[in-house]
Amino acid sequence: MSRLAPLSGFPEWSPSERIVETHLLDTLREVFALHGFGEIETRAIEPLERLGGEAEASKEVYVLTRRGGDSAEFGLHFDLTVPFARYVEERQGTLQFPFRRFQIQKVWRGERPQEGRFREFYQADIDVVARENLPAHLEAEVAVVMARALAALPLPTARMRMNDRRLVEGFYRGVGISDVAGALRSVDKLGKIGAQGVATELAAQGVSDSAALAILELAKIQSPDASFGQAVVDLWETTPTQGDEQAQSLLAEGINALATLVESVNAAVPGTAIADLSIARGLDYYTGAVYETTLEGHEDLGSVCSGGRYDSLVAGGGFPGVGMSIGVSRLVSRLVSRGMLVATRSVPSAVLVAVIDEDNRGSSDTIASRLRARGIACEVSPTAAKFGKQIQYADRRGIPFVWFPRDGDDGEVGAGHVKDIRSGDQVPADADVWVPPADDLKPRVVRG
Amino acid sequence: MSRLAPLSGFPEWSPSERIVETHLLDTLREVFALHGFGEIETRAIEPLERLGGEAEASKEVYVLTRRGGDSAEFGLHFDLTVPFARYVEERQGTLQFPFRRFQIQKVWRGERPQEGRFREFYQADIDVVARENLPAHLEAEVAVVMARALAALPLPTARMRMNDRRLVEGFYRGVGISDVAGALRSVDKLGKIGAQGVATELAAQGVSDSAALAILELAKIQSPDASFGQAVVDLWETTPTQGDEQAQSLLAEGINALATLVESVNAAVPGTAIADLSIARGLDYYTGAVYETTLEGHEDLGSVCSGGRYDSLVAGGGFPGVGMSIGVSRLVSRLVSRGMLVATRSVPSAVLVAVIDEDNRGSSDTIASRLRARGIACEVSPTAAKFGKQIQYADRRGIPFVWFPRDGDDGEVGAGHVKDIRSGDQVPADADVWVPPADDLKPRVVRG
Repeated sequence: MSRLAPLSGFPEWSPSERIVETHLLDTLREVFALHGFGEIETRAIEPLERLGGEAEASKEVYVLTRRGGDSAEFGLHFDLTVPFARYVEERQGTLQFPFRRFQIQKVWRGERPQEGRFREFYQADIDVVARENLPAHLEAEVAVVMARALAALPLPTARMRMNDRRLVEGFYRGVGISDVAGALRSVDKLGKIGAQGVATELAAQGVSDSAALAILELAKIQSPDASFGQAVVDLWETTPTQGDEQAQSLLAEGINALATLVESVNAAVPGTAIADLSIARGLDYYTGAVYETTLEGHEDLGSVCSGGRYDSLVAGGGFPGVGMSIGVSRLVSRLVSRGMLVATRSVPSAVLVAVIDEDNRGSSDTIASRLRARGIACEVSPTAAKFGKQIQYADRRGIPFVWFPRDGDDGEVGAGHVKDIRSGDQVPADADVWVPPADDLKPRVVRG
Repeated sequence: MSRLAPLSGFPEWSPSERIVETHLLDTLREVFALHGFGEIETRAIEPLERLGGEAEASKEVYVLTRRGGDSAEFGLHFDLTVPFARYVEERQGTLQFPFRRFQIQKVWRGERPQEGRFREFYQADIDVVARENLPAHLEAEVAVVMARALAALPLPTARMRMNDRRLVEGFYRGVGISDVAGALRSVDKLGKIGAQGVATELAAQGVSDSAALAILELAKIQSPDASFGQAVVDLWETTPTQGDEQAQSLLAEGINALATLVESVNAAVPGTAIADLSIARGLDYYTGAVYETTLEGHEDLGSVCSGGRYDSLVAGGGFPGVGMSIGVSRLVSRLVSRGMLVATRSVPSAVLVAVIDEDNRGSSDTIASRLRARGIACEVSPTAAKFGKQIQYADRRGIPFVWFPRDGDDGEVGAGHVKDIRSGDQVPADADVWVPPADDLKPRVVRG
C-alpha cells in the first residue's frame, strides 16, 4: 500500500495517504479546540544551547549552517516542548494563565530510522501551564482530552497507562534508592530488556537486591481503578524499608493522586485509564502524573501518546504544567501501511464536468462554478475528447460523477445530465440544485 | 499589534495572530480543494545538489549536519517547486496526469531579513502538470483559482498582472537581443532600479540603445483586456527589427495567448487580470504565461502571488505545467502588523463553565461535555473561586459567555444560567439546548 519513502526516515505520503493524515490532524485540531486549547506555531529552529548544547543526547539534533557563512548556532527542534517553553518565557507578560495551547508541527531527530521511528515527523501536543499553581484536576483533564481525541479517530481502542512520580519516588526512596532518576531510567527499559536486564542495571547502580526486587514487584502492579493502592500498601508492608517518613508521605500522596486520576479519566472516557506502576518515562522533569498510551493489538508500536506533569516548564523555574504528545506520523504510517485506514478517493473532486468541444469550455466552467458555489468540489475535463475518454479519465482519477452539459443551443446552460460512473446511472440535473450523496461529497477516511 | 519576533526573519504569532494565519491557510485549502486540487506534503529536506549545489544562488540554502557526524548532504527546501518536481519524478508511475496538486508548507531562505522578507515562511502553491501536453486553458484556470482564493480572503483587491514569455522572447529577438534571459533579468528589476538602471545594465550586456529603448517601451504597455496587442504591434512597426520571421511568429503567438488569458481570467473573476508587459519574472524556466499579483494600496509589498507556465518540471525534460505560489507569511505579517485583520477573540472557547466548588467540578465537566457534543467549544474554570473571580478570568481570556451550573441538589445537572459577560445579560439555559449566537460560536477573523 504505502510506497517506501526514498529517503529513509523522511516519510512522504501518496495523495490518498495524505488524506488519511489530514483527517487525523484536522480531527485533533477540532477536539483540542472544543476543549478550549488554542493553537500556536513556533519556528522550526532553536539556538543550539537550548537543544542540549554539546551533550551526548544532542547528537540527534540537526545543526544548520548557511552556505553564505553563518557559524552554526541553530538546530531544528526535536520536540515541541523546548520551543513552547521559550514561547511562554518570551510572552509571559501577555499570555493569560493557565495557558492552554495545542501545537501540531513537524520535528526532526537524527535517529537511526526504523519502522515507526522517523527522522521527520508530526507531533501533536497539548499543554496547560500555570504561572504559579497548577490544580491537580488538570492532570485528569489533559488525559481526558487526549483520550477523546484518540476516540474521535477511527483507531483501535486506546489504553492510557498512568503512574505518579511521587508514588514512585516515595517507594524508591523508602526502599533505600538514592539515585531515583537513574533507577527510573532503567525501569523505563523494562519492555526492551526485561526484568533481568533491569535488575542487572540496578545492581550496577549500587541498588541492593532486595530493593531491586521490590521495585520490580512494584512495576507489576496495575489496575483500571483505585485498587492498585492496596497492592502498593501490601508490597510496602512486606518490603524492608528505611522508615523515611517523608518518603512514606510522598508515597501516600502519589497513591491518592493516581487513584483520583484513573477514576476521573475513566468516569469521563470509560475503559481508557489503567494505573500501571511500570510506567516510568525517561525524562527527569516530570513530577506528578506520567502517561503512556498503547493501541489494542498494536502494542509493538510502543506508546503513541505520552506525557506528564512537570513543576517548571522553563529553565529558571516556575510555570508548572501538564502535557501530552501524540506521535502522529508513527500512527499514520501504521494505519496506511497496514491498510487499516483508507481514503474513499484520492482527489477532492466529486464531479468531472465534461466538455463538449473547446468552443463550449466556457459552459462547462460555468457549471463547475455553480457546483462549487454550493460546496461541491469539481474539475472541468482537461480535454474535449470523446465522452467515453472523459469518463475513463474520471475513472482513473477516482472521480465518482461525470456531468454532461447540454449542447449549447438547446436551453439553460446549467441543465444537463450527471452520471454515477460506478453504477452507470445517469439522471437529468441542474447545476444549481443537484447534490451528490453525502458520502460522495468529499473523500472520506474509512477503515480498510 | 504584532510582537516583534525575537529571532529576526523567523516570525512567530501570538495566539490571536495565529488565528488570522489559520483562517488564511484553511480558506486557501478549501478553495483549492473545491477546484479539484489535492494536497500533498513533502519532506523539509532535499539533497544539496537539487538545491543548486555549489552555485552562487544556493548561498541562501540552510545546510544540515548531524551532531552524530553525517557529512552535509542535505539542506532545507527554499521553495515547494524543487520538492514537487522530485515527488512527481518519483511517482510518475502512479500519479494520474494532468496532476493537480496544492502544497502549503514552510520554506527556508537564509536571506537578509527585512520587512515582509522572512527566513522561514509559508508558501501555498498550486500546479497542474501534464505528462506530455498541457492545454493552454490551464494557464487561465490556475490564475482563476488563485484569484478566487485571494477573493475569498478578507484582503484588499488583488490585481493579477500577466505577461507571456513568447511575446517577450519574440519581441526581444526581433529587436536583435541574443541573450533574452539576461535582458529579462534586468527588466525584472524595473521596479527597483528604474528605467535608467535597466538601460545601464542592458548596455553592459551589449544591447543596442535602440533595442533597449524598444524593450523599455514594451514594458510600459498594459491593458485590462486584449487591447495591449495593438499597442505591441504599433511599437513593433515603429522599431527597427531584424526581420526574423520566427521571432515575429513567436510574438504573434504570445500576443494571442496573452489576450485569451487576460480575457478568460476577467470573464471568471471580473477586474482581476491586467496584461502588463513589464512582468518579467527572474526565472529562466517559464515558457508561456507569467503572473505577479499586487494588493491595491499595498504595492510596496511586492508580488504576493506569482508563477508561470513551464515546459519541464523535471530536469530531464517532460512534465510541462503551470503553477502559482502565494507568500502566505508575508501577507499575514502585513495584515496583522497593520491591524487590518483581527480575530474576534484569541481562544477557541465560547463558554467558561463556572465551578461552584471542587466537590461539584464533575457537574461542570458534564455541562461542558454536553456543550461540546453540539460543537460548542468551552472550558471549565480552573478554580472554584468566587463567581466574580471566575467572570474576571473569562474576561481576561476573552471568553464571551460564563455558564453557572445550578447548585447540585436542586434539579437536572444540565440546567443553569448563562451570562454574556459583555452585556451582562443572563438567561436560564439547558446544556443540551442552548447555543451561542452564530458570530460567537468560534473566533472569527474580521477587518480591523
